[in-house]
Amino acid sequence: MALRTLSARNAAALDKELMSTGAFSIDQLMELAGLSVSQAVFKLQPPQKGRRILVACGPGNNGGDGLVAARHLWHYGYQPTVYYPKQPKNELYQRLTTQLRDLDVPFTEDFPAALAQTDHVVDAIFGFSFSGEVREPFPAVIRALAESRVPVLAVDAPSSWNIEAGPPSEGPGAGFQPEALISLTAPKPLVKWFQGRHFVGGRFLSKAVADKYELDVPPYEGIDQIIEVGVQEQKL
Amino acid sequence: MALRTLSARNAAALDKELMSTGAFSIDQLMELAGLSVSQAVFKLQPPQKGRRILVACGPGNNGGDGLVAARHLWHYGYQPTVYYPKQPKNELYQRLTTQLRDLDVPFTEDFPAALAQTDHVVDAIFGFSFSGEVREPFPAVIRALAESRVPVLAVDAPSSWNIEAGPPSEGPGAGFQPEALISLTAPKPLVKWFQGRHFVGGRFLSKAVADKYELDVPPYEGIDQIIEVGVQEQKL
Repeated sequence: MALRTLSARNAAALDKELMSTGAFSIDQLMELAGLSVSQAVFKLQPPQKGRRILVACGPGNNGGDGLVAARHLWHYGYQPTVYYPKQPKNELYQRLTTQLRDLDVPFTEDFPAALAQTDHVVDAIFGFSFSGEVREPFPAVIRALAESRVPVLAVDAPSSWNIEAGPPSEGPGAGFQPEALISLTAPKPLVKWFQGRHFVGGRFLSKAVADKYELDVPPYEGIDQIIEVGVQEQKL
Repeated sequence: MALRTLSARNAAALDKELMSTGAFSIDQLMELAGLSVSQAVFKLQPPQKGRRILVACGPGNNGGDGLVAARHLWHYGYQPTVYYPKQPKNELYQRLTTQLRDLDVPFTEDFPAALAQTDHVVDAIFGFSFSGEVREPFPAVIRALAESRVPVLAVDAPSSWNIEAGPPSEGPGAGFQPEALISLTAPKPLVKWFQGRHFVGGRFLSKAVADKYELDVPPYEGIDQIIEVGVQEQKL
């Protein structure tokens, strides 16, 4: 199944369209995105194989997806810990944070210590709107993820990767190749360089919007919010 | 599994609490509620056993849950038709309606004709805030549901039932006993009179809130947003 990819520019346009003429609210889309992320974690590593999960959240919507995923993971029986060093004053992110605090989900400021004590990681630091340089305090975080043996599921993009051009040849993300990736709505061009297990999630795309952006609606099964797509085929 | 029940008054208080100190938005809660409803439909009757589903939506939040469910059902491969005779000017309901129109989900004004051509029905007319009389145009709709042999899944309450006192002895809902019920967040006292299959959904309740309202967090499995609970045990 070779799904067509969505450029960074078109991903931004599609997002904007979903929330204007598409009539979705960001709360709705983020809830479904985070739910997809949580389902991918469950498929990769059910809680019996390791309950501790470190969710690293960046300052934007990718981080918001991570916050939602952490909540669902808690309800599935995982023990999430959230690393969220840059917490914007954005009302939605603050609410998602409160929802986690009400579940007694711990927030940590010490990433290396948390990484040493987890069974897996969700990388929700940067998503499709990332470009340019990795800003503090994330260079050390991404370097630690690149060097760690703990399995990482990246949300939409391995953080620090260029959405179009893939992995950086230098800097903190050089050599960062997560074990798994979940592309939200549609894969981005960077999947060409991705070597791990690949999921697509975000089951809300209409045929009309998919056609307009020259995308495929993936053949989700049953009530699944995600589907695993073959990476090898992806490259063809 | 005998889950404790939530009175109409406490259901309203809990809802209000989730959206104030709980920091949930109604968009979020309705998305999760509607998703739960869609998963119950799938469990009762997967699309291979009948794709046509009539979703009857009332003017309040119960109807909103139905609109969300209809969208997810469409994505699962069902062919939903929506009956939504009273469409409030509420911005959220209008957006949920637009999302369905963008999927070309048909809206009907002829309930009897739609009922004659469907494989199952979602009754999202009235929920936990219902009391008093069934207003037009719903008496005929509920009478038709009570008389029909098409399986009905009621959302939170069989419409026209009193939340505390159960089925009405007269009026349009006399003898209305749906095949299935999905209780959102927690069963309401009316489940004592309910004889069909019973699901609970809405996997967002924290232990703290459950304790405060003297509720149980149901033992959901895996990534399921719903759980089937034994009706017989429920009555003990």
